[in-house]
Amino acid sequence: MNTPWTLANRAARMNPSIIREILKVTEKPGILSMAGGLPSADTFPVEEIKAACERVLTDSPREALQYAASEGFAPLREWAAARVKREIGIDATPDQVLVTSGSQQGLDLVGKILCDAGAPVAVETPTYLGALQAFTPYEPLFHSLDSDLEGPTPEAIRALPTQAAGTRFMYLLPNYQNPTGRVMSNARRDAVMEAARAVNVPVVEDNPYGDLWFDEPPLPALGSRWAEGSIYLGSFSKILTPGFRLGYVIAPKALYPKLLQAKQAADLHTPGFNQRVVYEVIKDGFLDRHIPTIRARYKANRDAMAEALTQHLPEGCDWQMPKGGMFFWIRLPEGLNAMALLPTAVEANIAYVPGAAFYAANPDPRALRLSFVTLTPEKIREGVAILGRVLNDALNGSHAPTP
Amino acid sequence: MNTPWTLANRAARMNPSIIREILKVTEKPGILSMAGGLPSADTFPVEEIKAACERVLTDSPREALQYAASEGFAPLREWAAARVKREIGIDATPDQVLVTSGSQQGLDLVGKILCDAGAPVAVETPTYLGALQAFTPYEPLFHSLDSDLEGPTPEAIRALPTQAAGTRFMYLLPNYQNPTGRVMSNARRDAVMEAARAVNVPVVEDNPYGDLWFDEPPLPALGSRWAEGSIYLGSFSKILTPGFRLGYVIAPKALYPKLLQAKQAADLHTPGFNQRVVYEVIKDGFLDRHIPTIRARYKANRDAMAEALTQHLPEGCDWQMPKGGMFFWIRLPEGLNAMALLPTAVEANIAYVPGAAFYAANPDPRALRLSFVTLTPEKIREGVAILGRVLNDALNGSHAPTP
Repeated sequence: MNTPWTLANRAARMNPSIIREILKVTEKPGILSMAGGLPSADTFPVEEIKAACERVLTDSPREALQYAASEGFAPLREWAAARVKREIGIDATPDQVLVTSGSQQGLDLVGKILCDAGAPVAVETPTYLGALQAFTPYEPLFHSLDSDLEGPTPEAIRALPTQAAGTRFMYLLPNYQNPTGRVMSNARRDAVMEAARAVNVPVVEDNPYGDLWFDEPPLPALGSRWAEGSIYLGSFSKILTPGFRLGYVIAPKALYPKLLQAKQAADLHTPGFNQRVVYEVIKDGFLDRHIPTIRARYKANRDAMAEALTQHLPEGCDWQMPKGGMFFWIRLPEGLNAMALLPTAVEANIAYVPGAAFYAANPDPRALRLSFVTLTPEKIREGVAILGRVLNDALNGSHAPTP
Repeated sequence: MNTPWTLANRAARMNPSIIREILKVTEKPGILSMAGGLPSADTFPVEEIKAACERVLTDSPREALQYAASEGFAPLREWAAARVKREIGIDATPDQVLVTSGSQQGLDLVGKILCDAGAPVAVETPTYLGALQAFTPYEPLFHSLDSDLEGPTPEAIRALPTQAAGTRFMYLLPNYQNPTGRVMSNARRDAVMEAARAVNVPVVEDNPYGDLWFDEPPLPALGSRWAEGSIYLGSFSKILTPGFRLGYVIAPKALYPKLLQAKQAADLHTPGFNQRVVYEVIKDGFLDRHIPTIRARYKANRDAMAEALTQHLPEGCDWQMPKGGMFFWIRLPEGLNAMALLPTAVEANIAYVPGAAFYAANPDPRALRLSFVTLTPEKIREGVAILGRVLNDALNGSHAPTP
């Protein structure tokens, strides 16, 4: 094309998300979508947010609407440091907290200051798609860690010096991982962090789902085991609202100044108004009352989906019961391809995310991700019944499966 | 240091802003700061924003608080395309508009998709500090274009193929430039864009101050002269509030998909709540009533500062009357150094930004930037009188000037 623009080399690696394109099709009205990782809008505390907007704009409008500190709103930083200490044992001071425009921005800033072209970054198999997208522009070499039902194996981590020398960091999601829903046991956390220290590869710990536990409260964070070797990412998207784009990074003091410079360069600061409104909502313990209601709702949804999966999915489908979070991870019987079946599923009025999207390499064509939080239990039952019919039809050859 | 972290090569180029560190000192209570580029908080339409928050959270809370499209809120994109067409002749469709988290993020995304290590990017002399900070992590080679009172010279642009072959783009601020306050005449715009087309170097046009004109309405945008060779950056920070972090990029259709992918990777999307609230405030022509009040206020401030500068600055200081925007740019008499004098100025209870911060190379030690929008006219007179005393003292040797 005759264009005066020359793209950066990195731009060639940034590709339109095939998944995103496919899922646009799923935005047809009335579709039963189990695809998106959207929290239930029924959990948004609208009245509390409305009252907080009113208070912030009455009490401190000039401050809330003016440019603000790149580090974030000081009371919110104090709140975050206190909460992760109390809940999951991370020992950090408020001056280690950087407020970000969602935890997705935390991933971008981490990539910006830590990734070089060709330098390895180790990820779980599979891992969060958005993290792959955030790191990719910085051209790392992704190394997929062998993983089992508890996450990456300690052996895979101990092999890093020989298999991926110079790995900059491991990106790990210990709680109700997106996409698999799996959780690292306490023993696995110990072993993973022991291996990480042994090979001197630090950890970026992403924890958007930790508060969404159903059966047992969350275990101590990975970062509680190796403070100077851990960056922690927190988010308000799943426990309050994603529409405010509010998250935070907790970083070792040695790294904080570089992260802060990257933040300034990226967008100067996260909206001060949003930070003050969220702080106003949560400062008096609101989350201690609110999060249990989200848990109860999501647990009922999970149970409904588990029951429907048991009832409707054909023999040979493999899945585990998630102990929290938002997702089931299904492995289809041999011969079925989740990506190839998606158009048929959408035609039948349901949507899911093909699992292949979540792999840095060697995607599993038989995997798919189902969210259980966006639909009601009734709609979940209806959607899973349709999924069962689509899969059975495919197995019975009424749609030619792709090998 | 014994740390498990290895920084990216690009991080070595990201340095703490010396200016930022100095200006922290200026945050002492009661200081007359003419340093920051902060709009006057008196211009924030607090009641309108409060009413809009209430309406958005009443009419569409589930949509406003949920994840949203990376492109931005459709009605806001339509509004932006219509406005730049009407006001400054940019011919773009709404699907070329990408809503960003402030125009600073627009700069970051542009750098991400267009800058390679060592590839030249041409900038005005001097230029906006925040743009240098946004592009720097992508390791361009900055090329400073010879500039005069109207901006870069056409000759400097025509020399690009020999002096900076492979320049990816020129970064230009045609209206009331930060830091100099200068504006490009219509003849200069024609000549600059003719030269740009002749050498086939496209333009990134940053226009945060265009609405803040005092004497004559804004001239047609650079982008109105070469649509496929122009990216345009707009912002709500100076005409509504910076605390919402809301801006937009208008890009040629050939570039839009890459910008959008960069946006998704950076923070998924700009807060939908903020976009809806701003749209609710502006949709019925509010800005047509509001912006003239900002202009009148800033014009009075400019006139007060011009009068005070004439009265108090020592012989040999050089400055032009800005026709809009927020800044005076002062060149001190020979022998004075604006950076070296800043501690003395802060001691005397005023602050400014040394001009050296705004150069990609060869900083002018005698330049300084004064904002006339943050203080009242009375405080401006008081502050400039103090500045005059500090400069006169320095010239008279009571403080040793730095050569």
